Amino acid sequence: MSSKKVAIIGSGNWGSAIARIIGSTTKSNPNIFDSNVSMWVHEEIIDGKKLSEIINTTHENVKYLPGKKLPENIFAVTDVVETCKDADILVFVIPHQFVTRVSNLLKGKIKQDSIAISLIKGLSTSKSDGIKLVSTEIKEILNIDVAVLMGANLAPEVANDNYCEATIGIRKKQENGAMLKKLFHTNNFRINVVEDIEATELCGALKNIVACAAGFSDGLGYGDNTKAAIIRLGMMEIIRFVNQYYPGAHLSTFFESCGLADLVTTCYGGRNRRVCEAYVKFMDTKSLAEIEKEILKGQSAQGPLTAEEVVELLKKSDSQSKYPLFVAVNKICKKELKPQDLINELRNHPEHM
Amino acid sequence: MSSKKVAIIGSGNWGSAIARIIGSTTKSNPNIFDSNVSMWVHEEIIDGKKLSEIINTTHENVKYLPGKKLPENIFAVTDVVETCKDADILVFVIPHQFVTRVSNLLKGKIKQDSIAISLIKGLSTSKSDGIKLVSTEIKEILNIDVAVLMGANLAPEVANDNYCEATIGIRKKQENGAMLKKLFHTNNFRINVVEDIEATELCGALKNIVACAAGFSDGLGYGDNTKAAIIRLGMMEIIRFVNQYYPGAHLSTFFESCGLADLVTTCYGGRNRRVCEAYVKFMDTKSLAEIEKEILKGQSAQGPLTAEEVVELLKKSDSQSKYPLFVAVNKICKKELKPQDLINELRNHPEHM
Repeated sequence: MSSKKVAIIGSGNWGSAIARIIGSTTKSNPNIFDSNVSMWVHEEIIDGKKLSEIINTTHENVKYLPGKKLPENIFAVTDVVETCKDADILVFVIPHQFVTRVSNLLKGKIKQDSIAISLIKGLSTSKSDGIKLVSTEIKEILNIDVAVLMGANLAPEVANDNYCEATIGIRKKQENGAMLKKLFHTNNFRINVVEDIEATELCGALKNIVACAAGFSDGLGYGDNTKAAIIRLGMMEIIRFVNQYYPGAHLSTFFESCGLADLVTTCYGGRNRRVCEAYVKFMDTKSLAEIEKEILKGQSAQGPLTAEEVVELLKKSDSQSKYPLFVAVNKICKKELKPQDLINELRNHPEHM
Repeated sequence: MSSKKVAIIGSGNWGSAIARIIGSTTKSNPNIFDSNVSMWVHEEIIDGKKLSEIINTTHENVKYLPGKKLPENIFAVTDVVETCKDADILVFVIPHQFVTRVSNLLKGKIKQDSIAISLIKGLSTSKSDGIKLVSTEIKEILNIDVAVLMGANLAPEVANDNYCEATIGIRKKQENGAMLKKLFHTNNFRINVVEDIEATELCGALKNIVACAAGFSDGLGYGDNTKAAIIRLGMMEIIRFVNQYYPGAHLSTFFESCGLADLVTTCYGGRNRRVCEAYVKFMDTKSLAEIEKEILKGQSAQGPLTAEEVVELLKKSDSQSKYPLFVAVNKICKKELKPQDLINELRNHPEHM
């Protein structure tokens, strides 16, 4: 079996952090992987120089991961088709709003037996009758197998080689599970593989709705007990949602890094929590969009958007009453409900029946 | 069926907070409960007056829950046998080190068909070949059915009527589940009943070991990803421990307030976390006991003690290698391992195999 060639599609903060890992694992497993890894870089000019050339000469992504060296077997390529043309494994790590466009660029130009793995949190922005997972979008366009990697993985800490875990969700472990684990598993980035793609991926998107509720609770000063109840009820709605729309997930998957760990981190430290905490304090004078802009300085909080998409889907099957937390977050973000009324909405939660 | 008489054994901070709830639920369910509730008070003299008399005249536990009214149907009684003699439901809410003594005082003096519910977190301190649950200790001495109530329930917040959840673990739901739920369930204290006594109770004890590891991580400045991994791996060891020593628990129980919610709250806000964070910084000059004394001002951190008891039990079946987090916490508390080596111990966690 010839060694597999890997292409990394994306080179932002998370993409560069993961390139450090992939550069190292491909090099230390030469009989599994080709150690030459190409990484797609959207060209930019930094202080008069091309970013791709800076990366290929200094081995540092000075714009998105300054101060950290990329392994020398990572090669920046500015054309995404060129990046992927010989690849056996496509690692998607771009902002979710670019997935459809980039996948269409690659259509018909990649190896037919290649596989993809998506590290993208959030739902696809392509129009569909309901919501669409990023992995589904890639699969539909490229007609290849798509796995996902999710977990409590703040990029700067991963780049700093802090110990953490991640979850790979895959259709069948025995097919590519061991190989994909080898591609990401290092001393400080510990991988579990589960046969639950949708559950793994949905945890990464839905947790942001829960983090909004946690932020409202923090903004209102409700304390630790209430916040713990919100996180737990949010987890139960995530599980319920997965079971309703993608039945067959294992309950144990929600105890993986993609589930429990990522949810907790997001509800204590994440940006959705921060924006929603501030929203409670300033909602009389500012819109959610204004607060987001001020606090996140250009980054976006996906929780309010995900809540809107999820609630639209719930309405189609008249399921809102089973998801009081998701529905309340959506209403509060649209100013149809006061944050102070969140708890009232949770009081008759189906979990307490 | 005559209405059930309730006795509350204990009147500390948590006992008084729960008396506010029980006073209210017994009064609003007169055909289920006798609204006269007796509460055992260990007599003390406060500013020249007896605490029991202060409670019975001003309806305030000025020592342990100042500023909050107790319902007028809660009566302080200073003799524990007198408190319980006609009771159908005994609510145990005393520090765990008093359980054996108090249960022995009650032996033979209570109604034979009474039941108990323990709100006590931690393991029994009575000597046994291994560890003993508080509920088991009560059951063995009094020979009555014992349920447990656990959850993310910081007493001051419960006393403040902040919204929260709790879990009742019981042998068979259909026997007393509905009645016990009625005794505790209010608008702001939301109860789930599960048929898992040991899992419910063990979560409340074992979480403190995990909180120690979270504290070490905080003290070392390891960041959010690592802390999330520690909390998750700790949860997996809790589940593994319950399955090994008390097989038959439902995985879903660990998603209840007693599991996920209480663990998270304890790892972010609890006293074990605080003590262990400080221990990392001052361990060269101070013992754990000294740090505990300084920080907790008389209260105790049960994590180190529980870790010691749990590891003793693991040794008997040579199971230490399956619980690297529990074992590492125990070793660090005894200065047999540096906090800096915690992560190294977790690197080959059985969860990553």
